[in-house]
Amino acid sequence: MASPSTSTTPPPTKYAVVLFPGFQALDVFGPLDILNTLSRTHPLSLSLLAATMDPVSTNTSDASAFSEAILPTHTFATAPSDIEVLLVPGGSGTRDAANIAPAVQFVADVFPQLQYLVTVCTGSALVAKTGVLNGRRATTNKKAWTWATSQGPAVHWVAKARWVTDGKIWSSSGVAAGIDVTYAFVAAMYGDDMAQELADGVEYVRNTDASNDPFAERWGVVQPQPQPE
Amino acid sequence: MASPSTSTTPPPTKYAVVLFPGFQALDVFGPLDILNTLSRTHPLSLSLLAATMDPVSTNTSDASAFSEAILPTHTFATAPSDIEVLLVPGGSGTRDAANIAPAVQFVADVFPQLQYLVTVCTGSALVAKTGVLNGRRATTNKKAWTWATSQGPAVHWVAKARWVTDGKIWSSSGVAAGIDVTYAFVAAMYGDDMAQELADGVEYVRNTDASNDPFAERWGVVQPQPQPE
Repeated sequence: MASPSTSTTPPPTKYAVVLFPGFQALDVFGPLDILNTLSRTHPLSLSLLAATMDPVSTNTSDASAFSEAILPTHTFATAPSDIEVLLVPGGSGTRDAANIAPAVQFVADVFPQLQYLVTVCTGSALVAKTGVLNGRRATTNKKAWTWATSQGPAVHWVAKARWVTDGKIWSSSGVAAGIDVTYAFVAAMYGDDMAQELADGVEYVRNTDASNDPFAERWGVVQPQPQPE
Repeated sequence: MASPSTSTTPPPTKYAVVLFPGFQALDVFGPLDILNTLSRTHPLSLSLLAATMDPVSTNTSDASAFSEAILPTHTFATAPSDIEVLLVPGGSGTRDAANIAPAVQFVADVFPQLQYLVTVCTGSALVAKTGVLNGRRATTNKKAWTWATSQGPAVHWVAKARWVTDGKIWSSSGVAAGIDVTYAFVAAMYGDDMAQELADGVEYVRNTDASNDPFAERWGVVQPQPQPE
């Protein structure tokens, strides 16, 4: 990838996030907190997309006593046609195929037009269901590794990785790794100085090494055998 | 503080968060992501409190193209009467005294009944306006140090601290420090094993040392002279 100082392509400005009931809060707000601040110095737009315009809860059960609900700005059907960067979070809601079916369909439909697709946690599993990760390298949540990787048997899953880039797809490991992949993305698009300034501002110690992943070992995840091409 | 293994006081179960326009997303969702998962094994309740029941945006200007809005569950006037732990975030909205006036009044009113008050970032400045931090040790955002500490001239502000505990008040440094203070709080209340299990599950490398604060130096914040008692 070209560094921002040598690239002539302007960095992306049109962001969107896929929401579904049971999304993991930090998968969404770790990355968005960074982009919220970035948008103060760089004109950016954000669309929050869901199956309907109803508030979307961090729990799949509305009856839960402990959850938060955020408001979509568009449905998948009314999403802007010019999204450049799509963020796909994970969360417990990904375990229910019917629950995420509208999100899976949207990702499948929009993928060809995207400049970048960023996945966090089991958001990689959601995206894997579309087939767009087939034959590509990607990573996902280490605690949920067995289930998540089973959603994309033709994906080259990378066990020991904080995040992985392959073409226009940036996939990250579990939850908090979404923060690191977003800083890495911002560094690549807007410059490392910008990423570091943002991280210093929110007092976050970045993990800047995509292969620095202590959680593969923690969760006993080993590299699968290379798959036949 | 007694460790959970020796304490006979049951840990808190009733949480609430103060919201205002222009709250910092990670100040709220860093801590809540941890508690969301904790609530799967420990029965907890959560109230999201604001001046009105309108959605609360991360921006003070509704016209912003880049923001997120979350739904309150109660107004300050209808808040549950038995809140045990109150979380107060910071954010750009704290700079506008009128914007946070309802939140400041609520904190002043509810403080005597709380078991614990947890502040993140410039949430410490908001709380300082009530006077409840007077004569106590606390910390706040290091980049916004001069302004934030000016909101509580009678507070013993601790410059080099990821977080500070004084009595029932747990105050943390900027934004991402809210994650570390929450893990420390969970460790104190529910046991360190629980806190570590939660952190491992979301692949977060905890800062477990309250005095480990690289950002005081980064932002040139020095310890003020001791104030006359």
